[in-house]
Formats: sequence, C-alpha cells, structure tokens
Amino acid sequence: MNETVNIGLIGFGTIGSGVVATLNQNIHLLEGKVKKKVNLKRIVDLDITTDRGVEVDPQILSTNVDDILEDDEIDIVIELVGGYQPALSFILKAMKNGKHVVTANKALLAKHWQEIMDCAHRNGVRICFEASVGGGIPLLEPLNEGLAANNIETVYGIINGTANYILTKMADLGLDFDVVLKEAQLMGYAEQDPTFDVEGHDTAQKLIILSILSFGIYVEEEKFHVEGITRITPDDIKFAREELDSVVKLLAIAQLDDGELEIRVHPTLVPQDHLLASVNDVFNAVYMVGDVVGPVLMYGQGAGMMPTASAVVADCINIIQDMERTVNYGPATSRVKKVKDMSRVECKYYLRITASDEPGVLHSISGILSDLNISIESVSQKKSEDEDAVPIFMVTHHALEKNIQQAMKIINKLDFVKKETVLIRLL
Amino acid sequence: MNETVNIGLIGFGTIGSGVVATLNQNIHLLEGKVKKKVNLKRIVDLDITTDRGVEVDPQILSTNVDDILEDDEIDIVIELVGGYQPALSFILKAMKNGKHVVTANKALLAKHWQEIMDCAHRNGVRICFEASVGGGIPLLEPLNEGLAANNIETVYGIINGTANYILTKMADLGLDFDVVLKEAQLMGYAEQDPTFDVEGHDTAQKLIILSILSFGIYVEEEKFHVEGITRITPDDIKFAREELDSVVKLLAIAQLDDGELEIRVHPTLVPQDHLLASVNDVFNAVYMVGDVVGPVLMYGQGAGMMPTASAVVADCINIIQDMERTVNYGPATSRVKKVKDMSRVECKYYLRITASDEPGVLHSISGILSDLNISIESVSQKKSEDEDAVPIFMVTHHALEKNIQQAMKIINKLDFVKKETVLIRLL
Repeated sequence: MNETVNIGLIGFGTIGSGVVATLNQNIHLLEGKVKKKVNLKRIVDLDITTDRGVEVDPQILSTNVDDILEDDEIDIVIELVGGYQPALSFILKAMKNGKHVVTANKALLAKHWQEIMDCAHRNGVRICFEASVGGGIPLLEPLNEGLAANNIETVYGIINGTANYILTKMADLGLDFDVVLKEAQLMGYAEQDPTFDVEGHDTAQKLIILSILSFGIYVEEEKFHVEGITRITPDDIKFAREELDSVVKLLAIAQLDDGELEIRVHPTLVPQDHLLASVNDVFNAVYMVGDVVGPVLMYGQGAGMMPTASAVVADCINIIQDMERTVNYGPATSRVKKVKDMSRVECKYYLRITASDEPGVLHSISGILSDLNISIESVSQKKSEDEDAVPIFMVTHHALEKNIQQAMKIINKLDFVKKETVLIRLL
Repeated sequence: MNETVNIGLIGFGTIGSGVVATLNQNIHLLEGKVKKKVNLKRIVDLDITTDRGVEVDPQILSTNVDDILEDDEIDIVIELVGGYQPALSFILKAMKNGKHVVTANKALLAKHWQEIMDCAHRNGVRICFEASVGGGIPLLEPLNEGLAANNIETVYGIINGTANYILTKMADLGLDFDVVLKEAQLMGYAEQDPTFDVEGHDTAQKLIILSILSFGIYVEEEKFHVEGITRITPDDIKFAREELDSVVKLLAIAQLDDGELEIRVHPTLVPQDHLLASVNDVFNAVYMVGDVVGPVLMYGQGAGMMPTASAVVADCINIIQDMERTVNYGPATSRVKKVKDMSRVECKYYLRITASDEPGVLHSISGILSDLNISIESVSQKKSEDEDAVPIFMVTHHALEKNIQQAMKIINKLDFVKKETVLIRLL
C-alpha cells in the first residue's frame, strides 16, 4: 500500500460529518478494497469551530477553499456545500485543476448539467453524483453500468422522502396534510419551508438527472409538469384504498413512447400490488424497465446523514479504483425525438368534485365530460358532514390531459361546485 | 472509434442466444457507451446447426473451443456452457491466455471459487459474474461498488424464481405443491427434475457467492443448513396469512452477529409489511443492510433468456470500459470469526403438528416443548376433514434450533402424531 489518494471535503454540514464518520469507521475496509491509502487531507467550511460529533484532526480544518482547490496533492474533491453558488465555482475550479469531483448537489446538476459535464470532459476528470438521487441507494451506477445493455423504456421514482413520509402517515393515521406536515417538521423529516419537497421540485430535479442517464436527454424543470401533494386529503387516500385498491404516491415519471418522452411529476394512484405501493415512510425507490432486462427496482433510504454519506464515499472508491478511466454518462446518443407536451399525455384520472347536494349535478358534470370525450368508469357520491357540499368521486377511462384540463376549468366554474376539484392520475 | 474489442461466446443455448439477440439489438447503444467497436468474433457450441431464432453470421460459428481460447485477438470470453466441466477448464484456459471472462455459472463459482479467483489474479484478468445471482438485477456490482463504504450486516434473498413462482401460486390459488409444480413444468418455469430448485440447492449456490462478496468468506454448501419447500402445504400458507400476517418465502439468509456468520437456506415466514413479502412469481430480490446505508433492496427478474443476457452483456461493457483495471472482489479481509453452527441459531418457529384428535395431546406436546425451554406464543387446533388426525398450529417464542430439533424428534415419535411435523422459521 504505497500510493496515497488525498481527498478534500468542502462543506462540513450534516452529510459532510457523515462522510467523516464513515471514513473513520470503515477506513480499513475501504483501503483494503482499493489497495491504496485513503487520506482525508483537508476539510473546508466557513464554520470550523462547531463540534460535529465526529472525530477529526483540527489541523486539517480550514476556512479557505483554495487550501483544497489549489492543493496539487488533492486528487478528489467532495463538494457538499449545496445550492448553486459558490458550489458551481468550486466544482469548476476543482476540475480545471485536474481533480475528480464527488457531489450530492442535485439542484446544481439539474441546472448546470452541460457546463459541468463539458468542464469534466475538457479536463479529463470524473464527476460522480450517486448521492444526488436516491441518497444511499446504488442507483445511478447500476443504471449506467449494470443496465448498460438496455435501452431504458420507463422510469418511475419515489424519490422524495419528505413527501413519501407525509403521504404514508396520512394513509396510516387518516390525518390531514397540514397536521402530518407539522409532525414531520418536528421529527426533522421536513424543512421549516417545505415547499421544495411537497411541491415536487426536489423530485423534479432528481428526475432531470434520471432522464439524462436513462434517455440521454436534458429537460429543464420549466419544460415539464410538476405538481405536489398539498391538495391530497385523507378522503382521496381512503377512496383510493377502498375502491381502487391503490395508494397515493408522489411519482417521478419518465417514459419513452415511440420516440416521444413523457416526463412529469405528480401525485399518482399506484395499484397495491405494484412494488412501489409498498415503499413507505422516508424510503425511496426507483422502478425501471429496460428493453432487455424487463423491470427492476432499487430501494433504500433516499436521504439522511449516513445513507447519503454511503453514496458519497462509494463514489470516491469508484474513482480511486480507476483514476485513469474516461468519463461516461448515460447513452451517447438519445432516442428521444421530442418531449411530449403534457396536454397530449393520456391516462386514467381520479376526480374528487365537491358540489352542492342538489338535483342535476351529476347530470351536468357527466355531460361536460362526455362533450370532451371523457368517459366515466365509476362514480360514487358519499354523504358528507358538510351539508352544503358533498364529494363526488369519479374515475375516468383513459382520457387526454388536454381534455381533462379543459373539463376541470369548466367544472370548477359551475355554481354548484364549491371547491377546486382534486385530480390524481392513475399509474 | 478505432479500437475493436473482440468477444468469444462459448455456449449457444438459451442465454447465449439472448446475448446474441442483445448485441444485435443494442450494439449502437453499447458502442456509443464504450467508444470502441464491439465485435462478437466467434461462437462455439457442439451444435452449430440448430436455428436459435437470432440473426448470426454462420462464418463465426465453430465447434472447436480453441477457436476462441487460442485466438489472440479475442479479449473477452463469455462462458455459458454451465456445469463444472468442461466449463472450468475453458475458463482457466481463457484466463491463462490473458482473456477476461464473463460467466453466469453459479454452480462452478460456488464450488471452485478460490481456484478461479487465484487464476484470474495470477493472469491479471477480470472475471465478472453478475448474471450468476439474481439474473438481470444489477446486484453484485452495486454490492461491490455502490455499497463499498459499508460493512454488510445482513443479506436476505429470494433468489430462486422457480421456488418463488411455486410458493406464489400455492398462495394465490390454494393449491398443493405437486399440482403447482406440474403447472410450472408445463409453463417452463420448472425443470423436469426440479430437485435443484425446490430443495434449495440453487439458492444455496447463489448465497455462497453473496456471502463471499458481502462478508469475505467462502462457505461450502455442505457446511450450512439448506432446506427446500416440498413439505409446505396450502394450510401452512393460509395459517401464515390469517394468523401471522406473513407469507412463506424460500429465503437465503446470511447475517453477521458479533463476528459469527449465520448462513442458511429454508422456507421462512416473512411479515406482510416487509418488502420481500411483495416479491412474487418468478421475480427475485435481495435485501441487504449495510452499517452506513441501512437497508437496501434490489428487485428484478432472476432468470430467463433476456434478463440473464442483460447482465452478461453489462459485464462485457464493464470490462471494456476499463480493460486495465485490477481485480477486486468483496472485502479484502473478513470480519467473520466463525460460521455459527445451525444448532445455535435462535428464532421463532411455526410448527404444524398432525395428531389424533384425542385427550391429552396438547398437554403432552406442550410438556415436551417446555422441558426443552421452548415457550409457546400461540396455539390453534383446527377441525379437519380427516377424522383420524387434526393439524395443531403452533408459534413459539424465540427458541434455540438445537432444542427445536430435539423437540421435533421426540414429538414425531409420539404414537398420536400421524405425520412428520412441518417447521417454518420466522424472519
């Protein structure tokens, strides 16, 4: 074991502390695998005084990022600063200085993908980001390598732990979104500003990365449908379970249909016998279909200090095992001819319409749907404690998104409709 | 794309044909990824006349294995002959001649592991065998690389599609083992001689490979408990579902407990809310717990022409992407101090005792169990159509395997016990 690989860590927050803890705990395992000495040479953070609860030599702490970026002895830079800047500058400078980069920064990758990859390519370095999607789950490497013989046809992901935790608890306890969100915040499973997670943006960023690796195409978040879980109620979940034998999950969906890519994020009714329906609490899973292998699923903890650190350290090992390797990400060419407009997506829809309990309501609504070529598979009207309004639960046959959206506009403006209609797509 | 990588395929059976079909179908995808020309230069089989239903240049077919093993231009040899010999000789000769090897041959690896790995190491070549466990599921590479930062603590696998198909159909349809086996044979899901699959030997061979990669230790099949599913009846499955909210699965289990490795294959009662309980039909899944990442699960098709071909071709790509890489398999050192003797394993047990319907039976049995320090968690005696004998269903608290086996011996010899008692361990 003559050769030493030096690592520099930028960002000594939760994940950074997890990386240090993992290296402390399993360094002999790692060094045995790569047959080199692995040395965490420097940690840079603005705060180098707070105790992170992990053992660290104070000598390696610095507040000056150039102590890593300009240290010729450092081979691998781990970026765990997060956000767009200065993380982007750090990564680009590291690569320009010939350093391989490991990052968990999904937001940055989803936004600056091409710039980062071009820079890696120009400088002959690798950038690994297993931790950016699905946390500790080995996901991107299997997609790139273990499934390398496949054209990927379908990707369905439960890739936001916060949203999945909230939906699971709503289902288990019959509680409202707001109540569960507050509990999740207390438990540390949701941020104080939960928008990013519960509105689907985090899921969308991860889906952008999955789409690049699966289909060789980069699609900006603004170009696809992203919808969160804030309007789901226990009523929806109960109806889904009792009448449709399904559960509500926030799904990232990307699938190729005759050269057209469908890409979207929204709450989805997943049949109980689909493996994704059993992915609960903060767990994540990605279900993929390849043209050779058929369906595969990867499951595990999608966030958290140690699971994420597991992926970050695995990336380091991956790089160390082959420091000379050329960069390869996803398909070299894309089979995607165009991204399908959301208006042309077809699926079945669950609708919960809240209307006054008066004659003719169902007749009017069914007429509107029929005029837009939407046929109803089932309808159920329940008694409500609220005597002014009753929920009408409907499931449609396959219909066109454009038509459903048009129907929603008309229905929501009807006098007897008392609340905005809730719509959930079926898988 | 100047450089060409030449592949030789030995064994043009089902999987071999799948490999050819995959290369035909996705060669541009593969070449784009590795940025080299990938050429299937030679296929060797004793039978080179039967039409396999895949397009192949007749010029590359040969019956002489040395057309591959002694061709200096061939970089990678795919061994799909199966069995011990001549497969072992082919692999060893290929490696001695400097060729990398890809194989799906779990039996060979489970038996001749050390000899094969030593030979690979001496000759500086890689041997990849992703297809040997879990068919198309990316499993061994994620275990080696994506989870490289982890000490693996637990491995639970459903890794035999035939057994899982039979158990699933028995549960779904309430049919006897023999009936479902016959149907599985007609469907091509079970061999004419199904012993290898239904008695757990195939599962055991795969578990040997998983244990090497997870725990760095090779354990021969003769050294651990291997038990199949032939004695499971619909009664057991029904009781498990209704009273224990569990399903019966043939599990491969390997877990490290304070330096002692528990390794065993047997039917197991898996709680319905465990993800493995939802792995049905011919699908496989492996659930692992790492000390950093926590639990992860990989799921997909564990057998079949195309899924297996997917893994074989992925191994080729993996080798091509880095032809200079040093060989690395699993932990360099093992944390296993000893393999735990089955008699010292502790778990809960389900027992189905078939006894005459006469006074004192339960009193006798509970006395025997009590004397052996086995306490009963629940007991249930059902009416039977067979008036001579009734099934008594029991679930014990945690007990020692040695004591349970002793109790079985005594109980099975009692005059009023009419059939051998069925015992299933709880997960």
